Amino acid sequence: MRILIFGGGGFLGKRLALELLKRESLSRAGEAAQDIRNVTVFDKILPSDFSGDHRLVRFEGDICDKSLIRSLLSEPVDIIFHLAAIVSGEAEKNFDLGMRVNLHASLQMLELCRELKVNPIFVFASSCAVFGGDVSTTIYDNTAAVPQSSYGSQKAIVELLINDYSRRGFIDGRVLRLPTIAIRPGKPNAATSSFVSSIIREPLQGKRANCPVSPDTKIWILSPSKVIEDFIFAASLSAETLGGNRIINLPGITTTVAEMVRSLEQVAGKKAVELIDWQPDAFIQSIVLTWPPTFAPERGEVLGFKKDASVRHIIDSFIEEELGQTK
Amino acid sequence: MRILIFGGGGFLGKRLALELLKRESLSRAGEAAQDIRNVTVFDKILPSDFSGDHRLVRFEGDICDKSLIRSLLSEPVDIIFHLAAIVSGEAEKNFDLGMRVNLHASLQMLELCRELKVNPIFVFASSCAVFGGDVSTTIYDNTAAVPQSSYGSQKAIVELLINDYSRRGFIDGRVLRLPTIAIRPGKPNAATSSFVSSIIREPLQGKRANCPVSPDTKIWILSPSKVIEDFIFAASLSAETLGGNRIINLPGITTTVAEMVRSLEQVAGKKAVELIDWQPDAFIQSIVLTWPPTFAPERGEVLGFKKDASVRHIIDSFIEEELGQTK
Repeated sequence: MRILIFGGGGFLGKRLALELLKRESLSRAGEAAQDIRNVTVFDKILPSDFSGDHRLVRFEGDICDKSLIRSLLSEPVDIIFHLAAIVSGEAEKNFDLGMRVNLHASLQMLELCRELKVNPIFVFASSCAVFGGDVSTTIYDNTAAVPQSSYGSQKAIVELLINDYSRRGFIDGRVLRLPTIAIRPGKPNAATSSFVSSIIREPLQGKRANCPVSPDTKIWILSPSKVIEDFIFAASLSAETLGGNRIINLPGITTTVAEMVRSLEQVAGKKAVELIDWQPDAFIQSIVLTWPPTFAPERGEVLGFKKDASVRHIIDSFIEEELGQTK
Repeated sequence: MRILIFGGGGFLGKRLALELLKRESLSRAGEAAQDIRNVTVFDKILPSDFSGDHRLVRFEGDICDKSLIRSLLSEPVDIIFHLAAIVSGEAEKNFDLGMRVNLHASLQMLELCRELKVNPIFVFASSCAVFGGDVSTTIYDNTAAVPQSSYGSQKAIVELLINDYSRRGFIDGRVLRLPTIAIRPGKPNAATSSFVSSIIREPLQGKRANCPVSPDTKIWILSPSKVIEDFIFAASLSAETLGGNRIINLPGITTTVAEMVRSLEQVAGKKAVELIDWQPDAFIQSIVLTWPPTFAPERGEVLGFKKDASVRHIIDSFIEEELGQTK
């Protein structure tokens, strides 16, 4: 089995590759497990220390480059994970760049898949940012996507393409709408949701962090380890199980910034909490505060996608996995 | 005021142009009425008899031709009505053609509008074919579009683009999701819904027609005269009234094929009904039977969009308007 990860240099892409490389074999689309012979990670830039397994193939390049992507697909590919994106804040500030990468490169990738003799499983990282507007309503599985950001719009468009390309048999698609992923390691990035991780991650390491929204802001979150499990699980489901609609709202937890901060205090004390600044940011609020925080992801739960036990559990896992401490 | 109609050679486009040319002036986006100085109709082919008003400008060409569309937009334009499309049956059979016209040409048009100094009102003819799947459920204004045809997918994608382009101020968009329009004059076309008109229109003129679905099939319909009123009304609404979601499910009537045939019998007798053949068509059923027939188009009704009084009324209007008879 050959697996291709677009966005393989990002935090989630790299973690997904490493998780796959821990395994000898994998079941895809309800079939018998096959040996994992090749995990190809593609990104603009890959971390230089990302190597060490003979099955890992590194590929750096521009995702918009048609001949490059075609050459990547010239060897048979069994599963594609497409996690590459211009993040929400950047796509809002640079409309053309977001359209080029989030929409046009994704569409081009689907068209190239259509040329293949054997159509691959195609797992796409979409986002709960496809929802926007009235944040007081609960999002059900059949609630319309009315994005209030260009990032969310571009993701929602690719969702529709994946559903139609799957219906026509060009690919065998699976779309996961990710909650805000927290807690991310590393540095703050241009995602407008970046602060959700920063306000925990930075104080835990003695650094200051800014929270651009008020403590009562509700958010819908999922941990990195659960979302990686969910990606692999999505590839394992049979096409029949998924039927005519390949879009799944992943189960997450509804929490508030205040609850996250309270959990931080339980774990790391008052001093950690005092490292948080509370400077409102109008741009971030204009996007993040349109994301509904309350979901009823019935289908995802019935299908068997995983969620976290609690915010406290998420923080403990972060400390253990990323800071190398055991509580 | 200059008005541009893409798909101006089609049945609805032509009728819209003629309706606009009946008027001296028009109000757009809640502003004071302005004189209608120019109605430009664009299509691949325009009916040769479509002329006679000095304000009517004919323009034949390929909607995918970027420089052509740009030249059409080089004179200031106040309102664009975009009704051009590869219809449902054709877009299903010829995927590339549907993508090229329904998606890429629409996106290109939006990009060209973005280059303009003054962004136009942009009224887009979408379709209730964006819905598909479980036809037993009622479609509310916030029900997710899960199309089961490439035509529906392409329409749903352009809807998302129009919402985002409007949010960013590139255009001032309005998206109308049209029920099946009945009764259309002329000949059957490649739309999978074509039979809904044929089974009434042909027998009324002593011709045979085929009904490819069973009599108990439910459908969601709107008459040509009401949808033309709705197009013009959509252009008249202010941006503030519409807010962050520019998509409107137009109010229609839920009826059945059997009810339409009963109304035909009332109007034209048993002989007319006997002209209908009942040959099932698996291709047409595979698309039409995924279109939900029951809507609760609350927003469209509150905004003031028009619907028909009854099926009987629709048939009587067709006879009067298209067959030139008064009952």
